[in-house]
Amino acid sequence: MRTSIATVSLSGSLTEKLTAASRAGFDGVEIFENDLLASPLTLEEIRARCADLGLTIDLYQPMRDIEAVPADEFARNLRRARHKFELMRRLGADTVLVCSSVHPLAVDDDALAAYHLRQLADLAQDFGIRVAYEALAWGRHVNTYTHAWRIIEAADHPALGTCLDSFHILSKGSDPKGIEDIPGEKIFFLQLADAPLLAMDVLQWSRHYRCFPGQGGFDVAGLVRHVLRTGYRGPLSLEVFNDVFRQADAGPTAVDARRSLLVLQETLGLITPPASCVPTGVAFAELVTPDAEPVSAVLGALGFARTARHRGKPVDLWQQGEARVLVNTAGAARRDGTGLAAIGLESPDPAGAARRAEALLAPVLPRRRALDDAPLDAVAAPDGTELFFCATDRPQLPNWRADFADVGHEARGAATVRGIDHLALTQPWHHYDEATLFHRSVLGLHAQESVDVADPYGLMRSRAVTNADGSVRVALGVGAAPTDDTVHAQHIALATDDVVAAARRFRRAGGRLLPIPANYYDDLAARYEFADGELETYRELGILYDRDAYGTFRHCYTTTVGHVFFELVQRDGYRGYGAPNAPVRLAAQHLAR
Amino acid sequence: MRTSIATVSLSGSLTEKLTAASRAGFDGVEIFENDLLASPLTLEEIRARCADLGLTIDLYQPMRDIEAVPADEFARNLRRARHKFELMRRLGADTVLVCSSVHPLAVDDDALAAYHLRQLADLAQDFGIRVAYEALAWGRHVNTYTHAWRIIEAADHPALGTCLDSFHILSKGSDPKGIEDIPGEKIFFLQLADAPLLAMDVLQWSRHYRCFPGQGGFDVAGLVRHVLRTGYRGPLSLEVFNDVFRQADAGPTAVDARRSLLVLQETLGLITPPASCVPTGVAFAELVTPDAEPVSAVLGALGFARTARHRGKPVDLWQQGEARVLVNTAGAARRDGTGLAAIGLESPDPAGAARRAEALLAPVLPRRRALDDAPLDAVAAPDGTELFFCATDRPQLPNWRADFADVGHEARGAATVRGIDHLALTQPWHHYDEATLFHRSVLGLHAQESVDVADPYGLMRSRAVTNADGSVRVALGVGAAPTDDTVHAQHIALATDDVVAAARRFRRAGGRLLPIPANYYDDLAARYEFADGELETYRELGILYDRDAYGTFRHCYTTTVGHVFFELVQRDGYRGYGAPNAPVRLAAQHLAR
Repeated sequence: MRTSIATVSLSGSLTEKLTAASRAGFDGVEIFENDLLASPLTLEEIRARCADLGLTIDLYQPMRDIEAVPADEFARNLRRARHKFELMRRLGADTVLVCSSVHPLAVDDDALAAYHLRQLADLAQDFGIRVAYEALAWGRHVNTYTHAWRIIEAADHPALGTCLDSFHILSKGSDPKGIEDIPGEKIFFLQLADAPLLAMDVLQWSRHYRCFPGQGGFDVAGLVRHVLRTGYRGPLSLEVFNDVFRQADAGPTAVDARRSLLVLQETLGLITPPASCVPTGVAFAELVTPDAEPVSAVLGALGFARTARHRGKPVDLWQQGEARVLVNTAGAARRDGTGLAAIGLESPDPAGAARRAEALLAPVLPRRRALDDAPLDAVAAPDGTELFFCATDRPQLPNWRADFADVGHEARGAATVRGIDHLALTQPWHHYDEATLFHRSVLGLHAQESVDVADPYGLMRSRAVTNADGSVRVALGVGAAPTDDTVHAQHIALATDDVVAAARRFRRAGGRLLPIPANYYDDLAARYEFADGELETYRELGILYDRDAYGTFRHCYTTTVGHVFFELVQRDGYRGYGAPNAPVRLAAQHLAR
Repeated sequence: MRTSIATVSLSGSLTEKLTAASRAGFDGVEIFENDLLASPLTLEEIRARCADLGLTIDLYQPMRDIEAVPADEFARNLRRARHKFELMRRLGADTVLVCSSVHPLAVDDDALAAYHLRQLADLAQDFGIRVAYEALAWGRHVNTYTHAWRIIEAADHPALGTCLDSFHILSKGSDPKGIEDIPGEKIFFLQLADAPLLAMDVLQWSRHYRCFPGQGGFDVAGLVRHVLRTGYRGPLSLEVFNDVFRQADAGPTAVDARRSLLVLQETLGLITPPASCVPTGVAFAELVTPDAEPVSAVLGALGFARTARHRGKPVDLWQQGEARVLVNTAGAARRDGTGLAAIGLESPDPAGAARRAEALLAPVLPRRRALDDAPLDAVAAPDGTELFFCATDRPQLPNWRADFADVGHEARGAATVRGIDHLALTQPWHHYDEATLFHRSVLGLHAQESVDVADPYGLMRSRAVTNADGSVRVALGVGAAPTDDTVHAQHIALATDDVVAAARRFRRAGGRLLPIPANYYDDLAARYEFADGELETYRELGILYDRDAYGTFRHCYTTTVGHVFFELVQRDGYRGYGAPNAPVRLAAQHLAR
């Protein structure tokens, strides 16, 4: 099906919005009136620009409060409509949206509303224009799609049909099944928006919190299914009022928007992108750094050994158990100091995973390979993290590990780290919801609820995405404000079966653990009972403790190198990430800075 | 009365919070548990720090879900309470807050709740501690203050009383009159918070949107009046969960908080700061600039004449009608480029106005005077704008105008500008509500509703504060994000009786008006009927048009110099500020940049 987006969903000037929509692959746009009024382009120039960009103008919405108003008001409305229809003819737009009236003088009179709409449709028809009448959730008298449809039926005019908007229908809890009673050819337009399930005034909810399908709590796909059964063949069009998207760069937002429609169409069986290929583990985490020494010192103290070096690049492989960390000192990677730049994900089908990612608009990265290198499929996540799809030690598939030559170093002592428990990545503030949808749809991970985390200098949010067995866990975090992207470090959480032993080993080897205030341990003593000496050990090492219905969690943190730190995690059945301890940890990190 | 603030209302580490509270003049604090747990200070050090800062620790709230829970749960609660009471003894805090249970296993059994609270109070008494039981608005079974009080009465224990929280009472629409039925000595604590009137889930409302009294829509003073009638003599304590305050600098937030309590106490007749002294007009606007030439050129083209020069400083006075603009090229003022740095407000009693401002914690500025200068009382607004209280040409009072020597220049042609219509000031993002309260309480201006204004790159907000006759109007604006403080220029709106003549004159004199897109005028033509040629004139000059129930509004804009531009405003009865035109104007300004 054709896809479209309302210009109000994107930031910038009209031309910036059109360009972003076109680049993301949309077929058409709804032009929001203020965007047109504020544009220095003439109508003919806008029409030509859209044509150049391969965009049709699918809808224009210049009028409100048309119907069931006093006669003099309606006369003014018709006069205005004539101007706007003339404008639409020049613009090349053939469908006008008319929302149900919120006018204070509008009367509750379906016959009058039908009469007015019929007159409007008569006028529209002269201009070759169709009128799509939509029930606003907060319409004064008409606020359900069934009510709007009854009026349209009564008006009975070929140039009058309905526009359905998923937000207006689902926010009121209306049953979308009744859509199937509307003939498909009378559904002139379909606007889609999702929204988080908030208990709040529906007008404010609509104006500030709409999001793209799959990013909220509505069953948008279920609604579209009913629409498709009517025979509707118009576009799937996004109309999303969102305070964050208004500020974000239009380019990424448009890609996020288009991806949401691709995923929706896949759900509906309308398109079949390459199948989802859920990662089965973390092959490696890759750090980039201008100076390998500080990171290497921390890894060594944690019990990692530098086991191999890339055959063609300045990249070391550090390993302990199944935890592998690459330390990359290549020039191009050095710019921003030490950071977590890439993740290797074990994939049942690396090439297939990359194909799906590409189909869902993830930028495919050039294969970074020397002549002999194994081809490594990689894409960029919304935060810029490179995701490599790997097949470690699987003979029939290209093996990234083969690009590394063993250097013969062995770890001293038994392994205290078993593997990578999870990775925590700071997301660009404006693209938190995009990040979730990306990890869910592109990688097939399951997204958990977003939780608020109190940092001393603002409320952060964090959401985990995981595979079914927990062998891939990524915590997506976002700061309190758009400027906070780099304030909070990313981290690698390492799984251990004995956090005390792992912490002791680290400290004995000269590593520095994040000190946790004594007051925290007094509180633990008040809340839980511990074996003799247990709490003293935690206090000594800075080990934090939590408990959920499934088990216990013990964890501690290294101090930060550049933008990265490590966490040691002993997860005995526990399913969370120690969120209740995060405020204490964040405060300690601010202090240690 | 003593004033107190919960540490959760301020950002930063515990010591930063305590310091900010003390500097703002609070007498005490409620320590929020997470702030204590995350502090590296011992309990004794916290106690000493508070004492050094002149702060008592008025409340501690370490426990939730205490009462009406299963017996084993309650046994754990008592064990925990013992730890916490021991802690409070070391801390020197003698009142503990217990919120009504939200525990999933809590039962609806007032007798059990009373029994549990009595046991807790028994234990507390051993430590010299009082238990203040509070009904959360979302408490599982107890969610009104009257219900909490019934349980306390049933428990009948000297160490058990209630804590009243204005948010929990007013958010549920409970009648606060019943407070008077509670004996004052059984009200152990009073927490105050205001909130904007939002229709949303009360828990989310409480956790994210509370604000200081006078910044929201609740009648906090009315509630406190009932509390005072009971004989309550404990502190007035602010407990405000607010996402913005969490990010803002603690210092200004604490001042904002304390000012809100001063205003509240004034309303209640508890204190009598110097009386409000509402300004009666705008004496001048002062621009600072490193280079007077560009601004002077604009002022000259607008019809201003450079009529006088300060006797001792590099400050020119430009005048036209009653509009006076000072152009200051002094070194100290040059740092940030051309900007609006100060406003002179006509005051019936300049010294009295300054005394009130000082009493309400506005920083008093050193009098910038040379030997012969008239003393000029001035304070700083929250955005740093200097506010001078003036008595222009009033013989018995010091006259700032006397510091200027006429230079004998005369404007060419008749005046087209009558005076200053309004001033638009961009506010620091984190202190928008503070700015409103400041202008309302310190200056005695009336605050209008905040309106959203769609900029192409984000949603801005704007709120006007005015005196009764509209001779002082200030539009306080704030950008879409904390980083936007400087994106949007400040401006001086000049009143004219003939915007067309004023615009023509400006343009003839070489001034450049902001071009407005032709599409805007096509829309005007669709919406309104104009006399022949009228719209063509507006189109030619870039004049915008709006209408409200009181009259019409015609306005246009100069291009921007530094951070400042001018608006020409013809206000024929109209009461607003042309907000419907703001998106078009903002888009045009982005284009013109």
